[in-house]
Amino acid sequence: MTRSIALISTGGTIEKTYDELRGVLSNQVSVLDIMLASLELRGLDVHRVQLMNKDSLDMSAEDHTLIAQTAGRLAIEYAGVVVVHGTDRLAVSGDRVVELVGTPASPIVFTGAMRPWELRSSDALQNLTEALTAVQLVKPGVYVAMHNQVLAFPGVTKDKVAGTFVKAEAP
Amino acid sequence: MTRSIALISTGGTIEKTYDELRGVLSNQVSVLDIMLASLELRGLDVHRVQLMNKDSLDMSAEDHTLIAQTAGRLAIEYAGVVVVHGTDRLAVSGDRVVELVGTPASPIVFTGAMRPWELRSSDALQNLTEALTAVQLVKPGVYVAMHNQVLAFPGVTKDKVAGTFVKAEAP
Amino acid sequence: MTRSIALISTGGTIEKTYDELRGVLSNQVSVLDIMLASLELRGLDVHRVQLMNKDSLDMSAEDHTLIAQTAGRLAIEYAGVVVVHGTDRLAVSGDRVVELVGTPASPIVFTGAMRPWELRSSDALQNLTEALTAVQLVKPGVYVAMHNQVLAFPGVTKDKVAGTFVKAEAP
Amino acid sequence: MTRSIALISTGGTIEKTYDELRGVLSNQVSVLDIMLASLELRGLDVHRVQLMNKDSLDMSAEDHTLIAQTAGRLAIEYAGVVVVHGTDRLAVSGDRVVELVGTPASPIVFTGAMRPWELRSSDALQNLTEALTAVQLVKPGVYVAMHNQVLAFPGVTKDKVAGTFVKAEAP
Repeated sequence: MTRSIALISTGGTIEKTYDELRGVLSNQVSVLDIMLASLELRGLDVHRVQLMNKDSLDMSAEDHTLIAQTAGRLAIEYAGVVVVHGTDRLAVSGDRVVELVGTPASPIVFTGAMRPWELRSSDALQNLTEALTAVQLVKPGVYVAMHNQVLAFPGVTKDKVAGTFVKAEAP
Repeated sequence: MTRSIALISTGGTIEKTYDELRGVLSNQVSVLDIMLASLELRGLDVHRVQLMNKDSLDMSAEDHTLIAQTAGRLAIEYAGVVVVHGTDRLAVSGDRVVELVGTPASPIVFTGAMRPWELRSSDALQNLTEALTAVQLVKPGVYVAMHNQVLAFPGVTKDKVAGTFVKAEAP
Repeated sequence: MTRSIALISTGGTIEKTYDELRGVLSNQVSVLDIMLASLELRGLDVHRVQLMNKDSLDMSAEDHTLIAQTAGRLAIEYAGVVVVHGTDRLAVSGDRVVELVGTPASPIVFTGAMRPWELRSSDALQNLTEALTAVQLVKPGVYVAMHNQVLAFPGVTKDKVAGTFVKAEAP
Repeated sequence: MTRSIALISTGGTIEKTYDELRGVLSNQVSVLDIMLASLELRGLDVHRVQLMNKDSLDMSAEDHTLIAQTAGRLAIEYAGVVVVHGTDRLAVSGDRVVELVGTPASPIVFTGAMRPWELRSSDALQNLTEALTAVQLVKPGVYVAMHNQVLAFPGVTKDKVAGTFVKAEAP
């Protein structure tokens, strides 16, 4: 039995690569295919959608809307949607999905990384693995999976000091 | 909010290390602590239980029963239980839990690896990450998480040719 | 200015790969090409000679002679020769070169590994790097380069307890 | 028989680490000790001298002089000196040694990296390994060891387009 999910890439730290002549990390090429090849994904059919390749700090309101609409539409076609996104404005895109789509047809799980995959000590592969597992287990909704936490939107924010996502407790 | 799970180690390929003077891979020391240290587990409290360190082909009926009883008991105390186990007889231990415990108080998720963590191309970290994610998302029951699949016992067997677990389809 | 060396592979621990269905490390495929691709070798032309792929404990007297003759012949054609060899009987092949060839036309540098390249903590890449550097710097002769030591034959033996090569001090 | 060398660290790309909250690579801590621990250096006594930790583009004339004088002085005390240095102005320090010291008492070998050690695909460990091998094999002089090339000063320059060092051919 094959399960089918969509994987939307938008860029962010997770996909940053090192430009050795300029000495900086930037979003030039997608490393998601290398990451996927390093995982054993039995019976999973991954439909790749390379929507954009941006540091999320550079995303416009139109970018967030495009991401939300694309995720909502693919959630109808596929059994789940994973969105790889820069962490700085990941919560803006997550909130936009809730705003525009409400409860999607299948789970939409955002993920990202604090340290690019290209680093030895990156959290990228862990977070992608968590998102690919969570998207098959949670009920339809909008989530972020990262650092062993799966948090449901709305109410999710990035804790910039701790370098991870937190969920506001209900009052 | 801290979540608390128990992590039972029993040995298996995932924990095999290389003895350079003898030139073989064997179960001498636990590498689980190194694997855990390489993951970012926010708000997760992991209670480590080193029950045994065996190639599962060497497990006796008493070993399987001990594993099942320990997992069942810890499922009452903790919000979830992950069991690291050799894949060859993982399904025997999973079936024994169902037999002795029925539906446990919290999810019990088995995992293992086809390739030791010590290998560059190991599936160990992926599988452990999947188990640590799944144990927080599934409802109480007995499962194996590996290779992006989370399968519920009973009815799970190892496909020795494909090197992964499969679930018999309902007739 | 391009430098040209020959690289003879004979097998040994350095090239052992993991058979996940049998759970053992053995000499099935050559990993030397992957290792070479991971190094930056500017201006170096490497002529690959896959002579055999054996655990050196399985080498016959004919194998040692074949290795020695091949290395001696290639030392005439190339500016240097690196021989990748199992460590257990590396010194037998080294002594055979001295016996059959005397001082070769260009340096012949043996190397190997105590831990297969496939292991995270392998010494394989270090040793290959050392051999590829040493072969360009030493004067014609027969050597082993490993663990930051470059030792000249004859008089080299493997210290099986320490897991490295040592040179008998002159009396 | 123990060999003794001095290892001077000055910073540069090789030692850059990733600041996940700022998203940049910079020279904060020395990674050389981690790199040394990952190598098997039998019978080698390494005397570490942490002289400075700077991107070489930020080095002043006084910095280059301090590096040259320190290397020259340590070459008298030790059987060899390795200097880890940013590549952009490595040749300036190398030329300064020749200018101030002439032929040192023992070999002085500079090295560096185009890609920080923290990256999976770094050339740092290869280059450090080459320098540690070369310093034991070359005759007293000033060199750079990198990318399988060992080049003698003076006349060495960085080829910024190719990202490596080249030696001007004698006219």
